[in-house]
Amino acid sequence: MTQYRVRDPDAIGVAVIGCGRIGLVHAANVASIPNVRVVVAADLDPAAAESGRAVTKAERATTDPLAAIADREVEAILLATPTDSHAPLIRAALRSAKAVFTEKPLASDLRATRQLVREWRNTGVPLQVGFMRRFDPGYVAAKRLIEAGELGRIEQFRAYSRDAQMPSLEFLHRSGGAFVDMSVHDFDLARFLVGDVIEVFAWGSVLYDDRLNDLPDVDTAIVALRFANGALGVVEMARHSRWGYDIRTEIAGVEGKVIVEASNKTPITLSRQGRSELDHFAGFEDRFADAYKAELNAFVEALAQGAVPAPGPDDALETMRVALAARDSWHRGRPVRVARLG
Amino acid sequence: MTQYRVRDPDAIGVAVIGCGRIGLVHAANVASIPNVRVVVAADLDPAAAESGRAVTKAERATTDPLAAIADREVEAILLATPTDSHAPLIRAALRSAKAVFTEKPLASDLRATRQLVREWRNTGVPLQVGFMRRFDPGYVAAKRLIEAGELGRIEQFRAYSRDAQMPSLEFLHRSGGAFVDMSVHDFDLARFLVGDVIEVFAWGSVLYDDRLNDLPDVDTAIVALRFANGALGVVEMARHSRWGYDIRTEIAGVEGKVIVEASNKTPITLSRQGRSELDHFAGFEDRFADAYKAELNAFVEALAQGAVPAPGPDDALETMRVALAARDSWHRGRPVRVARLG
Amino acid sequence: MTQYRVRDPDAIGVAVIGCGRIGLVHAANVASIPNVRVVVAADLDPAAAESGRAVTKAERATTDPLAAIADREVEAILLATPTDSHAPLIRAALRSAKAVFTEKPLASDLRATRQLVREWRNTGVPLQVGFMRRFDPGYVAAKRLIEAGELGRIEQFRAYSRDAQMPSLEFLHRSGGAFVDMSVHDFDLARFLVGDVIEVFAWGSVLYDDRLNDLPDVDTAIVALRFANGALGVVEMARHSRWGYDIRTEIAGVEGKVIVEASNKTPITLSRQGRSELDHFAGFEDRFADAYKAELNAFVEALAQGAVPAPGPDDALETMRVALAARDSWHRGRPVRVARLG
Amino acid sequence: MTQYRVRDPDAIGVAVIGCGRIGLVHAANVASIPNVRVVVAADLDPAAAESGRAVTKAERATTDPLAAIADREVEAILLATPTDSHAPLIRAALRSAKAVFTEKPLASDLRATRQLVREWRNTGVPLQVGFMRRFDPGYVAAKRLIEAGELGRIEQFRAYSRDAQMPSLEFLHRSGGAFVDMSVHDFDLARFLVGDVIEVFAWGSVLYDDRLNDLPDVDTAIVALRFANGALGVVEMARHSRWGYDIRTEIAGVEGKVIVEASNKTPITLSRQGRSELDHFAGFEDRFADAYKAELNAFVEALAQGAVPAPGPDDALETMRVALAARDSWHRGRPVRVARLG
Repeated sequence: MTQYRVRDPDAIGVAVIGCGRIGLVHAANVASIPNVRVVVAADLDPAAAESGRAVTKAERATTDPLAAIADREVEAILLATPTDSHAPLIRAALRSAKAVFTEKPLASDLRATRQLVREWRNTGVPLQVGFMRRFDPGYVAAKRLIEAGELGRIEQFRAYSRDAQMPSLEFLHRSGGAFVDMSVHDFDLARFLVGDVIEVFAWGSVLYDDRLNDLPDVDTAIVALRFANGALGVVEMARHSRWGYDIRTEIAGVEGKVIVEASNKTPITLSRQGRSELDHFAGFEDRFADAYKAELNAFVEALAQGAVPAPGPDDALETMRVALAARDSWHRGRPVRVARLG
Repeated sequence: MTQYRVRDPDAIGVAVIGCGRIGLVHAANVASIPNVRVVVAADLDPAAAESGRAVTKAERATTDPLAAIADREVEAILLATPTDSHAPLIRAALRSAKAVFTEKPLASDLRATRQLVREWRNTGVPLQVGFMRRFDPGYVAAKRLIEAGELGRIEQFRAYSRDAQMPSLEFLHRSGGAFVDMSVHDFDLARFLVGDVIEVFAWGSVLYDDRLNDLPDVDTAIVALRFANGALGVVEMARHSRWGYDIRTEIAGVEGKVIVEASNKTPITLSRQGRSELDHFAGFEDRFADAYKAELNAFVEALAQGAVPAPGPDDALETMRVALAARDSWHRGRPVRVARLG
Repeated sequence: MTQYRVRDPDAIGVAVIGCGRIGLVHAANVASIPNVRVVVAADLDPAAAESGRAVTKAERATTDPLAAIADREVEAILLATPTDSHAPLIRAALRSAKAVFTEKPLASDLRATRQLVREWRNTGVPLQVGFMRRFDPGYVAAKRLIEAGELGRIEQFRAYSRDAQMPSLEFLHRSGGAFVDMSVHDFDLARFLVGDVIEVFAWGSVLYDDRLNDLPDVDTAIVALRFANGALGVVEMARHSRWGYDIRTEIAGVEGKVIVEASNKTPITLSRQGRSELDHFAGFEDRFADAYKAELNAFVEALAQGAVPAPGPDDALETMRVALAARDSWHRGRPVRVARLG
Repeated sequence: MTQYRVRDPDAIGVAVIGCGRIGLVHAANVASIPNVRVVVAADLDPAAAESGRAVTKAERATTDPLAAIADREVEAILLATPTDSHAPLIRAALRSAKAVFTEKPLASDLRATRQLVREWRNTGVPLQVGFMRRFDPGYVAAKRLIEAGELGRIEQFRAYSRDAQMPSLEFLHRSGGAFVDMSVHDFDLARFLVGDVIEVFAWGSVLYDDRLNDLPDVDTAIVALRFANGALGVVEMARHSRWGYDIRTEIAGVEGKVIVEASNKTPITLSRQGRSELDHFAGFEDRFADAYKAELNAFVEALAQGAVPAPGPDDALETMRVALAARDSWHRGRPVRVARLG
């Protein structure tokens, strides 16, 4: 594997590609890293590209992502475009030997994902996937405790996720469905914190929006997980939440248990009329604001030090296999082995 | 149905039968109810019977449970003997037209339970089963919120139970296994709070004590629940917990979510060396101390007012069907319809 | 000092005197203690006396407190009458060598209190005062941690008390005022947990009910405390609280800090509309329900074992001195030494 | 008053002066604001100046603060030098009509502060003082609730502050003492959230480090506050804390109460051996990380929009008067009116 190397670790040239909502969050974060110099912001929409330029104080804006990738001053790509374009743009970056940080997923189906991972392997080009939860201080601490043996042998994994608001039907139609689009973050945490998942069983229901029956998709689901190490797990999801973004994860072992949960967004408790009230996070942008920064810091630091950034393509591929097995189990109404999907 | 009627609602004669650990808890609770007069305490072990008498200030102690049931002054039986003896003693009480409060289960298998429920029906004799969690202030409040529509349509039920310490192998051998012995409390809550369960899927593992493989039984389990109203649920259990008795239950709906959890036993937070510490309940006796009192208060109040106490034999029967379906699913490795067990 | 001795430690004869709101709470609690036999319930109001009898299943009811004290079968008095009658009834009990558990205060002013304590000393008759907070599991744990040295040298004491509802003006008129009637519980905790208070400074305001200006009294107050061991403290109070009964206490030392606080009455969290809600205790009856039981258990156990119950008359006297010094500081507008009051 | 005006609201030229610990925090924060261009970083220490330049990607570094202030491209100064130099550097900035964001205090004594405020008044030059807590989401929410009348008439203010570690004796010697150096943040919150303080009473003790007696200074203190609107308050402090940085503030009114408290730094709970553990913030840098950003955002936004930034010199002056009155009360042992200090 050729060693990818940045020219000046103190001034790494970056192109921001995709300046929509999450793209601008990434753009501001990467621009605030001292050893990053944002060279160009790209978006098919000129106004979005200009917003990206302004936020990053980049030198240039462009509506041509491939030009941004090809730019000689650019050494790393920050990719936050729609899912469909991930694979071709990553492929272009790999050819130009530009490091990539990409929002998940790598590609929209398993076949395309495997193909891309195969192309990436042995290129030596750093490629990090945006499973930002791994960088949340809560999950970082959980990982450290588990690795230090503080919980003993792991017995249970338990994840609960409710998004604040259901996405548009148009988005859902292209999303791959609840198991692939939403629970994939919990499957990644399951693998990150406990290990390989070998079998899943899933049930889903449409309880909130009947139109999902036509896709078909579900708005409420349970996935039981069996891990290679014998531990059992469960991932629950719902597409909407009146009380706010609700992401909680537990890992229990013989010796101890850790709960990752951010229950009160503002450090305030309001008491009145017999009750005390706490507030909630509104969505992933505020709940994981620090994680979004931390994942980019880690990516840039890996580039500066010549290290391999993580989570990488293999993690993305394995997590997608779990998600697809869950979707398959929902379809078939019986347990599905993850390995079978091959 | 004949109306059961106590002679004097202000002085109901009670026999306490079974004066072991939980029996003495019940005995003290029932004795502190103003309109109860404990007539006799019975246990095969004379020392235990005498402890029961002392705790209740009862007039008599006896080693003959049937004599206690037959006692003319006795109008209601509080039954806390080993599981095997539940059915015959309840049957004796029914014949003597004595009201019964019994620890769960009614009987040790489905066939015996159905037979007993059939015998009980139409007797008009009050019979309450000790699902004490229904009387915990948290579950009472949850039930009230759900019935008032505060949560909207129910989407998710989520239960987590870890006992502090694994029972003896001898106990486990006769217990019916983890699904029947331990998760039955969560299945009862599922029915109480959400409604009928129509299908289950269960996985179990032996992660803590290999000797369970020989029973066979499990120490860690997940059960997915599908409710008649479309809601999905999950019941998780483990037989032991280093951090204390850990019972948590959530119900989420379109409009809101309620979590029933008692996280800090003592109203104290100790801070030192960079951390703050909360403590845990040690077991069901302290976590549900008030619930044990409240269920007996409700039983006695129903007797005094000529009302039908709840939860009754039908609840016990239906909950057992869910538990047995879960055990069956674990054996077969596929989803099992609750109705099929008939 | 003569040794007071009960005839039968397994059946101590008790008279309940004063069957009002808190009296009935005490009555039910004492009646549920196995080695107590409630002989008689007394109240000037015949209906109240009968309620006391019913709750305790006592043999007799009477409207003559002195007769109840004189009753040959009575060995201990539980006193919950209005404040004015405490001293004369305690005096009668001392003369009859009957042990006394009395609600605070011993007497309505310092002179009468000192006189009563002088009369009590050397009688050998057990006399316990109802500072129930000392028996709350939170304060018990705090005391144990402090005595075990877990907090190191104590630096700060911090108490906050808000009653749910302001008492009637009629009650307040006879109450001795906010410092004596309400903050006395916090002053007792200060002495219990940290030690002697040597100087106080107090400010009070009327912010909620202008009619207090005429008594004169305050509805809001701060008291700074200087302890003999150098620690500093503060006691804050307000007479009313829209959000519920609010009692919190902290003790901080060189090594650690303990907060005693019961923040959620029901083990439930309700989430909706962007918020999660916890509930509050309604008043001292529910917040300190267990403490009311525990203080009587401790009293009865001391009688049964021939031990000296605590807190006793000296604690009541010393705490009153702190309370009166605070009231005096409020009048004078400057710090007041506790010792000066003599 | 002349209107201060920046040349280009989208690219405001900033000089960072003082690149020590807190200076570098400010430097990174200001550099990440899109419409800021850091022109120069200055520090007497060349290495520190270079660190400031690197963190901000500034064009220049210098060891001459006055040159940085005079720089033609510089329109605003970010001042984080030692306290002694605040007044002369602010004075220089005022003369050059450069806006100033300065760490508190404006000057080291009341006389110098009043002189500086007098010189500033009518210059029209924006001058904001670094009371960052006003920008913490918790205090922002508390302020909004109070102003919206949600708490009703304010009755109580309650602040508790413990720094994690006691500063060096050398620092303490020049700090002005506990009341001025540390409690000043709580006095500012008192004024911000409740209003003018008219009288204070203070006690202090040396309980942790005897060497403070020689300064003289205290490591533990209580300050009672009387507000112009009748509310009462208390500010407590200690110089060290074994369990972490501990800042809590409460405001209670007739209708409700708000507690500002950040109790768990990492969104994680670790349970083991009968206990659950939460962690604490280490110091002001992590507890108020977002507030440090927000105060600079507000400053820059005020400059861009031609608005007057707050809190300003008058707030700094009034807060210092409260702090000095508290120190005076400690010296004299009696209440001190804030107004008397002139």
